[in-house]
Amino acid sequence: MTATRFDLLGIGNAIVDVVATAHDSDIARLGLRKGGMTLIDAAQAVSLYDAMAPGIESSGGSVGNSCAVAATLGARVAFLGKVADDVLGRVFRHDIEAAGVHFPTTPLGGSEVPTARCLIMVTPDAQRTMSTYLGACVAFSADDVDPALVADAAITYLEGYLFDPEPAQEAFRYAARLARQAGRRVALSLSDPFCVGRHRAAFRELVRDQTDILFANEAEICSLYETDDVFAAAAAARAEVAIAVITRGAAGSMVLAGPVAVEVAAEPAQVVDTTGAGDAYAAGFLAALTQGKNLAVAALLGARAAARVIEHYGARPIGALDGLNAALAGLED
Amino acid sequence: MTATRFDLLGIGNAIVDVVATAHDSDIARLGLRKGGMTLIDAAQAVSLYDAMAPGIESSGGSVGNSCAVAATLGARVAFLGKVADDVLGRVFRHDIEAAGVHFPTTPLGGSEVPTARCLIMVTPDAQRTMSTYLGACVAFSADDVDPALVADAAITYLEGYLFDPEPAQEAFRYAARLARQAGRRVALSLSDPFCVGRHRAAFRELVRDQTDILFANEAEICSLYETDDVFAAAAAARAEVAIAVITRGAAGSMVLAGPVAVEVAAEPAQVVDTTGAGDAYAAGFLAALTQGKNLAVAALLGARAAARVIEHYGARPIGALDGLNAALAGLED
Repeated sequence: MTATRFDLLGIGNAIVDVVATAHDSDIARLGLRKGGMTLIDAAQAVSLYDAMAPGIESSGGSVGNSCAVAATLGARVAFLGKVADDVLGRVFRHDIEAAGVHFPTTPLGGSEVPTARCLIMVTPDAQRTMSTYLGACVAFSADDVDPALVADAAITYLEGYLFDPEPAQEAFRYAARLARQAGRRVALSLSDPFCVGRHRAAFRELVRDQTDILFANEAEICSLYETDDVFAAAAAARAEVAIAVITRGAAGSMVLAGPVAVEVAAEPAQVVDTTGAGDAYAAGFLAALTQGKNLAVAALLGARAAARVIEHYGARPIGALDGLNAALAGLED
Repeated sequence: MTATRFDLLGIGNAIVDVVATAHDSDIARLGLRKGGMTLIDAAQAVSLYDAMAPGIESSGGSVGNSCAVAATLGARVAFLGKVADDVLGRVFRHDIEAAGVHFPTTPLGGSEVPTARCLIMVTPDAQRTMSTYLGACVAFSADDVDPALVADAAITYLEGYLFDPEPAQEAFRYAARLARQAGRRVALSLSDPFCVGRHRAAFRELVRDQTDILFANEAEICSLYETDDVFAAAAAARAEVAIAVITRGAAGSMVLAGPVAVEVAAEPAQVVDTTGAGDAYAAGFLAALTQGKNLAVAALLGARAAARVIEHYGARPIGALDGLNAALAGLED
C-alpha cells in the first residue's frame, strides 16, 4: 500500500448528545426501549426533551466519537457528516476540530432542518437509552463523499446508523466501493441490534462483500446472523471478514482474524455511563492498528480507551489521553 | 412573616457554560486571568471558543446554578434571568425547569443577540478560568422584576455578576428594595473578586443598606473591604449584615451572625472541577435555612452540596441529590 495522508476517515451521523439521568420507571413510562436507540421525529424530540431531567450537551455520533478519540490518541483522522449551520452544528464542528480531526463537510444551508441530536437517558445501572432525531444528517449524500479523500485514508470507517437516513445508505456503499478500489480497507460498526434488524439483508451483503474490519457487540452480531449463540455468530463473521471484533462489555473483547483469535479482558473502571464505550474501543483499536500494532495490542488499547469514557457522563473523553498515548508508545508492536 | 409561595427567588445572569480542560500554559498564552472571570465581547467569544479543547455544554450562571440545586434539594424556587429565543436559551430553560424551578422571564425577542455563554477552562489543579460573553443578559432590566413575585419569596438572592450589565444593576437594587419593603430577606453573592473591584463602592453600599445574608469566598470578602486579612474582612461583614457566610475552599466555611460564629469543615471530595462549588454551597445553605434549620446545619448542607458538584465537570449536579435530601431531613433543626 502507498502512504496516505490520513490513517482513518470516518463517515457517520453528526449528532449532538443531550445526556441526563433517569430511572427505569421513566424509560418505561416514556415507552422507550431500554439500552437501545430509537429514531424520533422533530415533534417527539421536543416532547421527550421536555420530559428529561437537566443534562449536559456534548458532541456525539458513533463514528464521530471514534474519530475524536482516535485523533486524541495520535491517529491522523478525517470525518464526513452533515450538520446544520446553527449553534449545535458549530458546537459539533468545534469539538471535532479541537480534537484534531479534519472535518470538510459543508453544513446544510438554506433550510429549517437543525443539527441532529440524541437524547440519552442514563439509568442507575449506567446503561444508556437513546432517542435520535436525525435532523440535518438525512441530507448527507454521495455528493458529500470526496473520492480523493477516501483514497487518501488507510481505513474508511462507517457506522451502521448511517443506514437509517436514506441518501446516506447510498453514500455509504459508494465510499466503501471507492476505498476498496483505491486498495484501502473498510471498517464497519454495526451500531445497534435494532438498526441491524431494520436493515439486516443489506448489512449481510455489505459485511460479506465490502467489509475488512467489523465491530459489533454481542447483541449486534447475534442480530446480524439471527442466532442466540454469540460464538456461532462470531464464527460466521470470522468466515466473512478479515478482522471481526466482538466487544462483550465487562466480559472483555475477542478478535477473530482468520486463523488467529485473541481475547482481551475489560479494563477495570468505575462505570458511570456506558455511552460511547464501543465507539472509544473502536478508536483505540483502529489507532493502534494503523500505527502497525498487532491485534492484541489493538484490543488492549481499545479496552483502555473505553474504560476512560465510561467513567463520566458523555461519550467522549474529557481532558487529554496522554496516559493512553504513552501506553500505546510503550506496547510491543 | 406571612407564608410565601416560594422559599427562594434567584435573580441572575442566564448563561450556558462550555467546559473544557486546559493547561496552565494555555491560560497564559490566551492572556486570561487564572481562576477569575473575564467579560468578553462577541468577537472574543468566537476566537476564544476556537482556541478551546473539545468540551461539554451545560446550563450555568451563578445564581441559576444555586436555584437548580436548591430546587433539587426540595426548596420552592423561582428564577429571573434573560435568555434569547435560540437553542442555548431553550437548553437553559429546559434545565432549570426540569430541576423544578419556576422561570417566568420572557426571552429576548426580535434581536440578533444570542443567549449568554461562559467559556470555562479547567486546569489540572481543578481551578476554573472563566470568560463570559453576556449576550442577552444585558437586556435584563427592572421591567423583568415582578413585584408580586418578589413579595412572595422568603429570600431574594442576587449575584454580584449582575452588576456588570448596566440595566441589570438597576433591576438588582429595585428587587432588593421590593423584598425589604415586603418584609422578606435579601441574600447576595459577591461572585468574583474582580467583579467586586469593578463595582466596589456600589457593593459596599448594597451590603450595608440592603443585604441580610452575604455569601463570599476569601478573595471576594478581602476585595470588598480592601484588606489582605480574611478575618478582618469577615469581622467587617459581620458588623454590616445579619448573616455573613465566608467559604474557604478546602479550609471549610464560617458563618457569622451577630453573636454567633460557626465553622464547618469542607466535605471530603475527589476534586475534578471546582466550577459551581460556591453556587452549590449557597444553594444548600439557603435550602436548609428556608426549611427552618440552624446555621450549622445550613453550612453543613452547603458543604455537602458543594462536594457533590466538584467531583465532575460542570457547575450543576448530574443525577438526583436524594442522599443529600435524606441528610437534610435527618439533621436536627
